[in-house]
Formats: sequence, C-alpha cells, structure tokens
Amino acid sequence: MSIHGKNFIGNDLSSNGDKSSKIYDLKSDEPLEGEFFHATNEEVDLALKKANKAFYIYKDKSQLQRANFLETIADEIMNLGDELILRTVAESNLPKPRIEGERGRTVGQLRMFANLLKEGSWVEATIDEALPNREPLPRNDLRKMLRPIGVVSVFEASNFPLAFACAGGDTASALAAGCPVIVKAHSSHSGTSELIATAIINAVKKCDMPDGTFSMVHGGGRTVGQQIVLHEVVKAVGFTGSTQGGMKLFELANQRKMPIPVFAEMGSINPCLFLPSSLKKAEEMAQLYANSITVGVGQFCTNPGLILLVKDENSEAFKTELSKSIENIVPATMLSSSIQEAYSTGTKEALSQDNITLLGQSKVENTKAEGRPTVACVSANTFIENPKFHEEIFGPYSLVVECENIDELDLVISSLDGQLTSTVMGEEADMQKFKKQIFSLENRCGRILFNGVPTGVEVCHSMQHGGPFPAATDPRFTSVGTGAIRRFVRPVCFQDCPNSLLPDELKDENPLGILRITNDKYTRDSL
Amino acid sequence: MSIHGKNFIGNDLSSNGDKSSKIYDLKSDEPLEGEFFHATNEEVDLALKKANKAFYIYKDKSQLQRANFLETIADEIMNLGDELILRTVAESNLPKPRIEGERGRTVGQLRMFANLLKEGSWVEATIDEALPNREPLPRNDLRKMLRPIGVVSVFEASNFPLAFACAGGDTASALAAGCPVIVKAHSSHSGTSELIATAIINAVKKCDMPDGTFSMVHGGGRTVGQQIVLHEVVKAVGFTGSTQGGMKLFELANQRKMPIPVFAEMGSINPCLFLPSSLKKAEEMAQLYANSITVGVGQFCTNPGLILLVKDENSEAFKTELSKSIENIVPATMLSSSIQEAYSTGTKEALSQDNITLLGQSKVENTKAEGRPTVACVSANTFIENPKFHEEIFGPYSLVVECENIDELDLVISSLDGQLTSTVMGEEADMQKFKKQIFSLENRCGRILFNGVPTGVEVCHSMQHGGPFPAATDPRFTSVGTGAIRRFVRPVCFQDCPNSLLPDELKDENPLGILRITNDKYTRDSL
Repeated sequence: MSIHGKNFIGNDLSSNGDKSSKIYDLKSDEPLEGEFFHATNEEVDLALKKANKAFYIYKDKSQLQRANFLETIADEIMNLGDELILRTVAESNLPKPRIEGERGRTVGQLRMFANLLKEGSWVEATIDEALPNREPLPRNDLRKMLRPIGVVSVFEASNFPLAFACAGGDTASALAAGCPVIVKAHSSHSGTSELIATAIINAVKKCDMPDGTFSMVHGGGRTVGQQIVLHEVVKAVGFTGSTQGGMKLFELANQRKMPIPVFAEMGSINPCLFLPSSLKKAEEMAQLYANSITVGVGQFCTNPGLILLVKDENSEAFKTELSKSIENIVPATMLSSSIQEAYSTGTKEALSQDNITLLGQSKVENTKAEGRPTVACVSANTFIENPKFHEEIFGPYSLVVECENIDELDLVISSLDGQLTSTVMGEEADMQKFKKQIFSLENRCGRILFNGVPTGVEVCHSMQHGGPFPAATDPRFTSVGTGAIRRFVRPVCFQDCPNSLLPDELKDENPLGILRITNDKYTRDSL
Repeated sequence: MSIHGKNFIGNDLSSNGDKSSKIYDLKSDEPLEGEFFHATNEEVDLALKKANKAFYIYKDKSQLQRANFLETIADEIMNLGDELILRTVAESNLPKPRIEGERGRTVGQLRMFANLLKEGSWVEATIDEALPNREPLPRNDLRKMLRPIGVVSVFEASNFPLAFACAGGDTASALAAGCPVIVKAHSSHSGTSELIATAIINAVKKCDMPDGTFSMVHGGGRTVGQQIVLHEVVKAVGFTGSTQGGMKLFELANQRKMPIPVFAEMGSINPCLFLPSSLKKAEEMAQLYANSITVGVGQFCTNPGLILLVKDENSEAFKTELSKSIENIVPATMLSSSIQEAYSTGTKEALSQDNITLLGQSKVENTKAEGRPTVACVSANTFIENPKFHEEIFGPYSLVVECENIDELDLVISSLDGQLTSTVMGEEADMQKFKKQIFSLENRCGRILFNGVPTGVEVCHSMQHGGPFPAATDPRFTSVGTGAIRRFVRPVCFQDCPNSLLPDELKDENPLGILRITNDKYTRDSL
C-alpha cells in the first residue's frame, strides 16, 4: 500500500486543501513516503455532519454488532502486517519489538472492549418497577442505563503511535460506547494513522456500519483541531499529550455555547516515595529506578520524575547508586525533533535553577536526535518554593527531593499537584508507619503502587489512568482500561416506557442476560 | 428553639461579621424571627480548613459508620418536629402537607444512602489478580474502587427548602461518599437551614464524627459563595437553581488554578410531545397537564413548560380544553418576592414577543405575592427563530408549539437545548411511528417519560435528574437518586498494595461481602 496522504471523510478519501506536510526521518533528515493534505473547513464540516447522521444509526446497533465491529478492526490491523510495523518504527524511532508490543496492546484493547460488550452489564441497567398501590403516592416504572452521547473527537498522542492513537483506547472506547469518532491525526506519525484508518474503514464496510461512523483528518497547526472542538455536533473530546495542548482544548470546549467535556490526560511527574526500609537496598533500588526513568527514552506519562526520601544513613548511598546507574545508560533517539528539543531545553533550564545539584548524567553525550539520561537533587524547601520543579520534563529525567525529616516530607507532598501515579517503596511495617503520607499521596493521584515502578500501564478493569488536575482534566474518568467507556456515555432514565420501545438492556425479559439492579437487588433475572 | 442566626463553623457557632439579613413574610411584609449573620472571610476560611482536616478522619470511617451517621441525621430532623414544619411553611409559603411530604422525602433520601452504604457494592470494586507467569510480561495485582474526593460545597435551592437544601440530596450524597460538606444557606429560608444544621451537628457529635465534617454559612450577595468555590480545599460544588447562578459558579470553578466540577442543575422547559392519538383525548389530557403546569405554583424544575404537537383535527380542541382548564385554576403565593417578580416579568416579556397568542390565563387576577397560571401558543417557526421562547419561565406557565407537519416537528426538536425531561404522550402504535422523534428527544434529556407528567421526581436507583447542557453542567451525573453519590468520588487504583493497607472493599477476604468484579467475573467471593 502506498501512502496517499488523504483525509478520511467517513468512507470517502478527500484532499481538497492546498496545504500539506511531510514527515522527516529524525536521523537522516530525509522525508518519509507520503504528503499529508490538511483538511479544509468544508471537509471537517462534512465529516462531522456524516458522523452525526451516522450516530442515529450506529447507536441502534446491538452490543454484539459493535463487538463484532471492534474485533474486525483488530483483525484488519493485524492484516496490515509488517507494513504497519515498519512505518510506525520509521515515524516514531521506537524499536521494532516495542512497536510490535504496542500493536498487541492496541488490538488487545479493541478485543477487551468487544468482550465488555458481549458480557453487556457495563451499561449499569437499573430497574425500579411501578408500585401502583404505594402510599401516599404510587411509584412509576423507572429504568436507567448508560447511553452514548454522540460524536466523539479523538486527538492522537505522539508517544504511543498505535495504542493512544487512531485506533487506540479513546477510539476503541468511544466506538464501543456507540459513538461515532473523528480522529485528528498526529503530524509526527500520519502515515501510521493512515494505515490504521484504512483498517478501520475496511471494518466499517465489512460490518455494514453507517458511513460517518469513523473519520480521520490531517491538519497543521491548530486550526483543524479547534474547528472540531467547537463544532456543535461534537459531544466530547479525548486527548493525550502536553498540558499546554490539553488546556487549550479544555478552554475552547468550555467557551462553547454548549460546553463539552475534554478528557485530556496531560502527564505528571509521578512521585515515588522511598521509605527508610527501601533505602537499605540502595543498589537494587537504584538499578530498578534508573531503568524505569530511561525505558522508552523516558517518553511515558508515568515516568518516575520525582523521587522523595527522608535523609538517613542510607540515603547518600542510594543517591550515589542512582547516579552510577544513570551514568551507564546510553542516550537514545527520541520520538520527534520537537520532543528532543523540549527535553534538551527542559533539562538545561532545570539544571540552571538555584540550589539544584546534578547527581548524574549518561557518560555518553547525546546527538541532536537523542535524549540524555539525567538525575538531579534538591532540598525540600527548594522544591516547594520553585514551581519549575513541579513541571514534567518529558524524557529520561528524574529529580530527587531530599527531606530533612517527616514534617518536611509532609510539606513536600502537600505541595504536589495532581498526578497520574504515586509509588511507595518499602517494607509493610514501614508503610504502616507512613500511612498518613501514603493517603496523602493517594489523594493526589489516580493510581498508587507499592514496591514497583510506575511505567507500565496494564489494560484491564482495575486500571485507573488519569488523576486530579493537572494530570488530567477530570479525575473521575480513566483513559485506559474498560472504565474508559464511561467517558462517552451518560445515564438516561426511561419512565413508564412501553417494553417494545425500551433498549434491550432494559426490557422485562432481559434478553441479553445482563446483570441489573432490579428492585434493589443485583440480578440477571427477567421481571 | 429560638433562631440565633449564627454560622456553623464545624461544631462551633460564630457571628463575627457586621452584616446581617432578615426574612420577611411575603404577604404581611412582617419580619420572621431571626437575624442571619453573614459569614466573614475568616469564618469561611476556618470552616473550610476544619473540613479539610476532618476529611482525613472522616474518609476512614467505615461505610457502616457513615450509614449510621446519615440515619442519625434523619432521626434528628424528625426530632425537630412541628417547629421545623412551621418555620419552613412560613419561609416558603408552601402548604403544610407539601412541606411534611418534603420532610419525608428528605429523611427518606438520607436513609436511602444509608442503605446504599450498608449494601456497599456501589464503590465498584474491581480486582485483577497478579499473573506472575503471563507472557510476554507478568501482570501486577491491580484493584480499583471509588474513593471520596474531599470537601464538597453545597448551595441550597429556593424551591425545595428541605429536599434540595441543607440536608438535601447533595449533602446526603456527599456525606455518604465520605466527603465533608459546607453548605451556603439560601437567604429565603435561612431559619429552616439553621434548624436542619442543628440536627446535623447533633448527629456529628452523637456519631463521633470529626469537627468540620459539616459547616453551614450565611451570606448576602455572592461574596461568601465565591470565596467557597475558589478555596483550594474545595473539590466539587453542588448547586440547584437558576442558569445565571449556576453558570457563574461554573465559570469561577473553571478559572481556578485547579478547576473543579460544578454540578449545577439549572432547570429546563421540559418538552412534552403530544402524538395524534393523545390529542383525541383532548379534555383528559388538558386537565392532566393544566394540573402539572400549576402544581406547587409551577415552581418545579421539571414543570412542563413546552407542549409540542402537530396540527390535526383534534389539536384545536386540545388547545381550547387546556385554555379552559388553566382559566379555572386560581393564582397562589410563590416562594419569594424575587421569584414572583421574575415570573411576572417573564410572562409579560414572553407575551409581548411577536407572533405569540395568549391561550388562557387564570380568571382570577394575582396579588403581588402570587403567580397567575398562563398558557400561550406559537408556531414552529416563531419558536425556532426566537431564543426567548427557549428560556425557562419559572412558575405556572407553559407554551404550546404548533407544528404544521412532522418536518416542522423535527426542526423544533433539533432546535431544543438540553433538558431535564422529555415526555411523550400517545398510544404505543403511534410511538412506533414517531421513533425517530422520540430518540431525538431522548438524546436531549436526562429522563424520558411516557404517558405521564414530568413533575414528580422519584428518589431511587433508576432516577436521572440532570441532562445535557444547559439543563445541567454535566449530563453524566444525577442530583437525585443513589447515582448522585458518584459526583463526589473518583476511581483510585491500588497496584500490589499489601492487604493490610487496602480499604476493606478491596481486601482479599472481602470482609464487607460486596459484589466485585474479580478477575472478570461479578462475584461476592473472597480471593
């Protein structure tokens, strides 16, 4: 398949615009195959109108039909074979095994949502039957379930060109919910996006889903994205990326006549608290964390960017070991030139702040495409007083905050913004002593983990990927795991609705056999 | 008990401010007992700091302890006896049976949440056990449940001085969730609020809940409310009232360094679609709706403010009957002088628009305290083109929109903003024919009802009270029914957490016996 660079306006390819862009190999500066045509106002508008029309048909597809559609998308992605892998490797500079793993994760997510739909109970059906003889007033028949909200707009992330992109978790969960999707392709991996979009459109056709169920558009700058977020048919936005990008969308969406939710996952510094018992194992801990800080060139939103500890007889050894481990890790190519530049500038700025000590840096200097592993150290007061240290530096960087005592540790934790993750390292007896600090960390994050590293986000029911602001715009939702579907639905109550007009999930006979709360009891029984 | 007019700063009474206000009887202009002291900046700040401190203790109370606390509040409210009823009647001008009913609803809500906590499964516990031998990567132990978000601020509504007020659904659901609450009392029924706050503080003490679990402050104008919404410890806001008031809070909350959700229920016009088969029963339908339009002097957010029909051989008779029925209903005293004035101005403005026909008005003229039942009629085009007709007029008013044909009806429905409710009247066969229009209504509301009236909001699992903007700020949540608790919690994932540190809901042995999703299966089993 050659890369055509066109926009997917529903099932139709379109390139009416006169602007386009190319993607360049980071190391050779040579352009990759393909010229990507930025969508015009009219193309975006047409895609969204198609999507809204499709919604009225797509939302009536049964859960089983939608499950089959998601599985077909997964199959079509696998059918792209090595062509997809090679293109994604070329665009992302990530190693082939990582991209193969990410493809597995992407089709795994689609199949996970298909399984969720086949089971069906996720719609939270509740039934309160009529009580015509109740005193002083009778009760009507009331039934409630989660229903799709309408067209969803998805913005691709740069750091997961498959799993948080065109057919990533946002798209999979929105389609699973019954919402048509329009994707704004990321300019750094538009070829990958095109291949995936082709696979999705194949599935749309094979499964007889309405034209407009899926669209994907290219755009330079922010014009196309802004038009999408402001368009009246769009009912929610999924985004993974920078604070700046996410906040721009959040503000735009709140300025609409009808504000809509923006589910922006904007990263965090992921504090890791090393309790005294963990510092005793200085070498082991340092090696574990040096690896976590630098895996994938540190380009994970769950990268451990902050290490908290209270000075004791082992803390100096831990710092020394961490420094040694980091020095031995070689720089590697980053996702794009803009990310590499932001990382270089970010570390330089951090290291030029007052009262910061460079702990260690890779012995090998980086090229202009690479990120150089770096760890530094500050005191509790320095950290608390300088907002710069609270900002994420996207790449293989981490900052150790050394507290003199537990009171200082409390102040440091209190000063933290919302986080995706927090980590606690240590023995159980130690954790019992630090219960207050642990809750304080929990209260500021979406996932709290014990004796592990925050990198690695499992896709399952129990995952929470999101956290209090500014880690995400809305901590009540997750962008990873089955819970992600809840972002694109809302409860609707049907009062005294004739059985024939009810969605299957709420019908007397419970044809799908789902778990419901019927008259206060969890049951799969029919009425 | 005499009315002291002081603020409840946690368990302490305080009146340090030099501003105060009184409440006047609407008919006699005489002041009611009590002078209400507006809280100072310092008092508000102290209340919120106490609340945040209380959170760290209150969130660790077991579900059973919180259930007992809610039941004690209910008991204490009942112990207030007739003193509460008389004060509320005097402040609201609502009849005694209505207020007694509303008290029943209020204590019923508290007990409903207590029952929800005793059952315990609402926390949506999920467990994915570790898979140490999984290939290519092992899986960590992951467990997730809903956890309280922190201090919640509640703004009382004017039209339900008990059920949407100091111990109303917002407070009950927040306390149930594990969140301390600060209430901003409504200036039109501050004496009622004081009595209820006294009952809550009695319960705080009896149940040994921390000082700061509950506070209530008075304030004139918007200063106190704004200070609360902007205070860093506040994590969510519950509000029921006008669009103007709700949007002001929503905008403030989004301007914070850390934006917080405002759950504002701002009312709606509640479209009711009369299908041809229903118009045949002109007299019966007209009587049913005249009653619903005027019940409680029309002061319900679910008041049927919009009646949609397609002209046919019965539509004229329906309009005539509706007009006759309305003419025979006498005006009644409204909640407050400002609400009466807004209603008088609102109907006058509506009736002065171009191309509106007054259908009928109560034969009896209203006094300056009363609202006069009124119905009017416009064509589809007039409705679509004039945004004035899309605004709620809070009181016993409704507008009939007469469409020439189904195409016009489609355009009218498409032009509607988000609504709390939509209603469909007619026979089942007719509904099958109008399926598209019915879905279009569902897509714009939180509750869709069939062959009934929207007034009357049942408190149960299946209720959805909320709807797409501007009916509410967030249609994914409800302010009535057990679902209301979800506004004040967020999912937190615990990864590889030692069993001893896990909340009871996630422990291996499932000590609460709640329903959980364990390794993909719904079960109450332990691990």
